[in-house]
Amino acid sequence: MEQGRVLVDIFVLFAAAKILGELFEHLRQPAVVGEVIGGMLVGPHVLGLIGGGSEQVLGLLAELGVILLLFGVGLETSVADLRRVGKPALLVGTLGVALPFLAGAGLMAGLGHGRDETLFVAAALVATSVGVTARVLRDLGQIRERFARVVLAAAVVDDILAILVLAVVSGLAAAGGFSPLALGVTVVEILAFVLVVVLAGPRVTRRISRIAHWPVIPGSPLVFALLLTLGLAALAETIGLAAIIGAFLAGLVLEFEPEEVATQIRPLEELLVPFFFAVTGSRLDPSVFADPALLGLGAAVTLIAIATKVAGGVLGARSLGGRDALLVGVGMVPRGEVGLIVAAIGLSLGTVSPRLYGVVIAMTVVTTLATPPVLARLVRRAQPAG
Amino acid sequence: MEQGRVLVDIFVLFAAAKILGELFEHLRQPAVVGEVIGGMLVGPHVLGLIGGGSEQVLGLLAELGVILLLFGVGLETSVADLRRVGKPALLVGTLGVALPFLAGAGLMAGLGHGRDETLFVAAALVATSVGVTARVLRDLGQIRERFARVVLAAAVVDDILAILVLAVVSGLAAAGGFSPLALGVTVVEILAFVLVVVLAGPRVTRRISRIAHWPVIPGSPLVFALLLTLGLAALAETIGLAAIIGAFLAGLVLEFEPEEVATQIRPLEELLVPFFFAVTGSRLDPSVFADPALLGLGAAVTLIAIATKVAGGVLGARSLGGRDALLVGVGMVPRGEVGLIVAAIGLSLGTVSPRLYGVVIAMTVVTTLATPPVLARLVRRAQPAG
Repeated sequence: MEQGRVLVDIFVLFAAAKILGELFEHLRQPAVVGEVIGGMLVGPHVLGLIGGGSEQVLGLLAELGVILLLFGVGLETSVADLRRVGKPALLVGTLGVALPFLAGAGLMAGLGHGRDETLFVAAALVATSVGVTARVLRDLGQIRERFARVVLAAAVVDDILAILVLAVVSGLAAAGGFSPLALGVTVVEILAFVLVVVLAGPRVTRRISRIAHWPVIPGSPLVFALLLTLGLAALAETIGLAAIIGAFLAGLVLEFEPEEVATQIRPLEELLVPFFFAVTGSRLDPSVFADPALLGLGAAVTLIAIATKVAGGVLGARSLGGRDALLVGVGMVPRGEVGLIVAAIGLSLGTVSPRLYGVVIAMTVVTTLATPPVLARLVRRAQPAG
Repeated sequence: MEQGRVLVDIFVLFAAAKILGELFEHLRQPAVVGEVIGGMLVGPHVLGLIGGGSEQVLGLLAELGVILLLFGVGLETSVADLRRVGKPALLVGTLGVALPFLAGAGLMAGLGHGRDETLFVAAALVATSVGVTARVLRDLGQIRERFARVVLAAAVVDDILAILVLAVVSGLAAAGGFSPLALGVTVVEILAFVLVVVLAGPRVTRRISRIAHWPVIPGSPLVFALLLTLGLAALAETIGLAAIIGAFLAGLVLEFEPEEVATQIRPLEELLVPFFFAVTGSRLDPSVFADPALLGLGAAVTLIAIATKVAGGVLGARSLGGRDALLVGVGMVPRGEVGLIVAAIGLSLGTVSPRLYGVVIAMTVVTTLATPPVLARLVRRAQPAG
């Protein structure tokens, strides 16, 4: 009867996310912040209303949620749009990986941590998780703006570089040492994946729409879209990229009734997306903030995480003008799954201590919580009142 | 990176279900049978394309799928409709519990099995799982027919009685013995749950729709409907009923924009419902059919499972006339989750052997597979050609 417990946890987390989300919207704050705080409140570290046995299942709903979110964002974007912002996106993505890594490594080494621990924390600072930014910009009706496209394209670049950093770092820490050959294979795989999907995807999905009356081809555009999204997300994760990059690419290249799919995907997002933000919140242990030593380290790591991404955005996107470049920088701040995965690998290899792991989790949640209000204020300030 | 494996499994199961479902529809067979067979083919017992670590997660998607399916069916039904068929439904539900239990117990005792094993297999034969029938009748546009309502109402009666049978049987087998007091509490809990939801539900949900602009009340009818469904499903499972009964009641009593919700729930069903049928199929180990002794027992158990439910329907619903009474009987045949749970409890108590457990699983899958084509043929035969 353990299944019953899981259903209760799903209900509690969904209710907390939606109720706090409504409350925050009513207070003219981003709903997504309410969802994160709702998850934190009912999570194991605060009220403990969700049980211990359902992490895997809730984590899956969260992952499906962010996959659908990024698929939806991809639907609203086109390959041509991304190409047009290629240069600033490349710069933002590269600087946004290099600066946090270097600054994080400098901080950790300066505090006297060992080589492997230093490298892991630095690597965990690297990868932007574009879900929260995509959600906020969509809620604000800004997702088709030029700066939003720079953020989306830069997130793809960023994720590719982050996964290479992770490959090097975990290779160095693992027993076998670092293998340039394996790294080369990873690079080729990832580039081939992105290029094949972007170049062949639109033509293939258009052709599928023409043979959709064939016996074994799903005739429903929604079903085809879901298959494409789940397939590319699974493939992306299998070769080491984040699943959301595959999902974003699926939305980007879908040419089989994209408008109809965009409408039908909404109810799926309404159910699943809140789990992503609520689960993120449920991971935060606020007692990190009660231990002065940990609090200091956490504050330093979080400040570096924020400052370096903002700097990367402002420098890399300065061709867009000051206000948009700042929006790009802030939009790149949130960290998520990939940082947690890096830290978890470090934890399982024994190179990252549980307390340091808590610091990385706190950093990802704080960057997720801090970004939406700042983005919303920056967007609104630039608009004519009314 | 185990998460990646789970995504691959989700994709493989969904793709297999949808592709086989399309193929079966093309062959003018019920899509749901294709979904079950698709799940069986990629499942661990045949091709083994889905890995070992994702049962819990796939099981959850399956449960969410059948919860949404029964919620949708509940939306298309009203309390008044069910009341109108109260008498035949009560008869069908009661006979459909008593006959399989008695015949199953007779078979097992006749074959020389012990008391506890006999009681467990008999109990596993009791509970109808109304998901497949609801799906088939909906696909055929018959869900608002009188006989369909008898099946739906009888399934509620059936599930209540089945859970009482399970309480008695597992009480007898457990160390503490059978407690009439605990059984009494269960009965009161279940009746109170169903009565409160049915009597107060419509008024409460109408009132909620009027205060939906308040700060913490979800303003979206879909979100409210999802909260109600998940909440009642979790509550039902907590007090020992099947989650789908709670979900069905949620749909039954929802009065906050039910038409809008019925439209928006469809994409959610398109994603999640196939998991229920594919997961059911993936549980079947066809090697049961290769062992002559097991095959004989399995055939006997399955025949009894089918014959007794058909008889219960035909006798209980004879006031509807021969053809509709037969449709009711066939509609009550499929077994599912509850039977598997009973057998799993017996397995964990050591009273049911793993081989006998395999027989129960085979019985549930065969009844699920056999029902849709028969239902479809019966429905079509009664209609004018065209």
